[in-house]
Amino acid sequence: MRLVTIETGGRRQVAALSRDGMTVRPVGASAGEAAGSMLALIAAWQGLAGAIDSHLGEPVPLAGVRLLAPVPRPARNVFCVGKNYHEHAKEFASSGFDSTAKEVIPEAPVVFSKPPSSVIATGETILGSLDPTASVDYEGELAVVVGKGGRGISRAQAAAHVFGYTIVNDVTARTLQQKHRQWLLGKGIDTFCPMGPAILTADEVPDVRKLNLRTWVNGELRQDAVVADLIFDIPTLIETISAVIALEPGDVIATGTPVGVGIGFTPPKFLKAGDRVAIEISGIGRLENPVG
Amino acid sequence: MRLVTIETGGRRQVAALSRDGMTVRPVGASAGEAAGSMLALIAAWQGLAGAIDSHLGEPVPLAGVRLLAPVPRPARNVFCVGKNYHEHAKEFASSGFDSTAKEVIPEAPVVFSKPPSSVIATGETILGSLDPTASVDYEGELAVVVGKGGRGISRAQAAAHVFGYTIVNDVTARTLQQKHRQWLLGKGIDTFCPMGPAILTADEVPDVRKLNLRTWVNGELRQDAVVADLIFDIPTLIETISAVIALEPGDVIATGTPVGVGIGFTPPKFLKAGDRVAIEISGIGRLENPVG
Repeated sequence: MRLVTIETGGRRQVAALSRDGMTVRPVGASAGEAAGSMLALIAAWQGLAGAIDSHLGEPVPLAGVRLLAPVPRPARNVFCVGKNYHEHAKEFASSGFDSTAKEVIPEAPVVFSKPPSSVIATGETILGSLDPTASVDYEGELAVVVGKGGRGISRAQAAAHVFGYTIVNDVTARTLQQKHRQWLLGKGIDTFCPMGPAILTADEVPDVRKLNLRTWVNGELRQDAVVADLIFDIPTLIETISAVIALEPGDVIATGTPVGVGIGFTPPKFLKAGDRVAIEISGIGRLENPVG
Repeated sequence: MRLVTIETGGRRQVAALSRDGMTVRPVGASAGEAAGSMLALIAAWQGLAGAIDSHLGEPVPLAGVRLLAPVPRPARNVFCVGKNYHEHAKEFASSGFDSTAKEVIPEAPVVFSKPPSSVIATGETILGSLDPTASVDYEGELAVVVGKGGRGISRAQAAAHVFGYTIVNDVTARTLQQKHRQWLLGKGIDTFCPMGPAILTADEVPDVRKLNLRTWVNGELRQDAVVADLIFDIPTLIETISAVIALEPGDVIATGTPVGVGIGFTPPKFLKAGDRVAIEISGIGRLENPVG
């Protein structure tokens, strides 16, 4: 099932997106708070999942509603992983923008965060003008949405804690990322976390390693990778983070970007006003945002 | 006024702490949502401040209630600043635990975050056992609580956006801080953000630069500094962060720690189970936590 958050008649609702992406069936009031909030739905999912169909209303055209990010406002910062594909780690190292380490391939997951306030929906504008140095770059990423929370989750248990998967664009102002050493300011900028369009529930993903990620800028293919190429795979990320920070239902973990970002080119191909960035992951959909 | 969050009879309330720290006067139901939530009170403050006394109930002994962190669950990660006192930047550089930069004194504020889930109250236990490498260190810090939000706040406007001040202990697992390069995992550990005991409202702080910060471990004085020694002062921090991330009412910005942390000693004096860390800042009070 692909789950989305929509706004219709000024009201926020959770809905199931049809396979063809043309219609949505809103979760009805019979599901309680879960009808109006993805975080509430995720928290209630274990009790709801089997009966979710019985809570879905009649299909309405997607074109008639406003699509929000699936988790429009996470309850804490989005967890993000840096340098988690080999070829990207190399392009980042040679770009000169990595001020944080001399090694090319990290010995342990590099984890930072983006504030919930940076999240925007597909179609919304990335405010590139907030980077005064015009060094805005895209990073297409697969993101894990946590279902059941917990601390000390082992690799073997990790899959049972995944609610589903979505797409995140880890938009980055490269000069700020470098200048401030820690990456919160370069990556946490308002509107710099496009997310969506939907959450694909884990039951529909038999092997996440086979998912394919592609990113286009103005129609030009820039990234094309499979999740199997992650340096630290999803069970390892869940084990590493949850060892010290108890995961919570609705947490979002962006797993890192593959090779092909703007600073991988010489000279760098930074985003400029009017550009469009589109990211697709098999089964999840297409996250597309203009740059303003 | 010193504002606290308390729990009494299973109910969360905001209250004013008496000058002698022995009693609290709860904000009453006449203040609406602000009675039960510091975030709601901060959001409503501009309308409430002049009349706050009329909303306060009868004094009750502090000993009879449970004191929580003043903002028990911030709405997004706490903003934190690294290497923001000269002598501390030097001790950190010579400790060998700074993997992120070669320069000793940063050219721009180093900003990272701690999840809201890491916040605990004075008296609660820092779970040092979550660091398997036993490298837990304290960092006493002055924290700014944001009142009025906004983006693009200039240095000159900054003071108008400060609601008040509290104390944060930016507890850190040094080996994780180093190993993961970005500091979220080394510093965002559950219980690693003691905060409190109170928020001292800005109207009672004529010159924040004159506030004195002292930290003790098991009664031994380890840190003793004045806020005037910050490398990047509070207006600069507010200007720098808000240039790219709109500040929100209730945001907490921990401003950095002065010289005297555990890794400043040779060999390092890491915290161990049974230790007690106490931090005092003039006018705010004493934040004291055992290590478990």
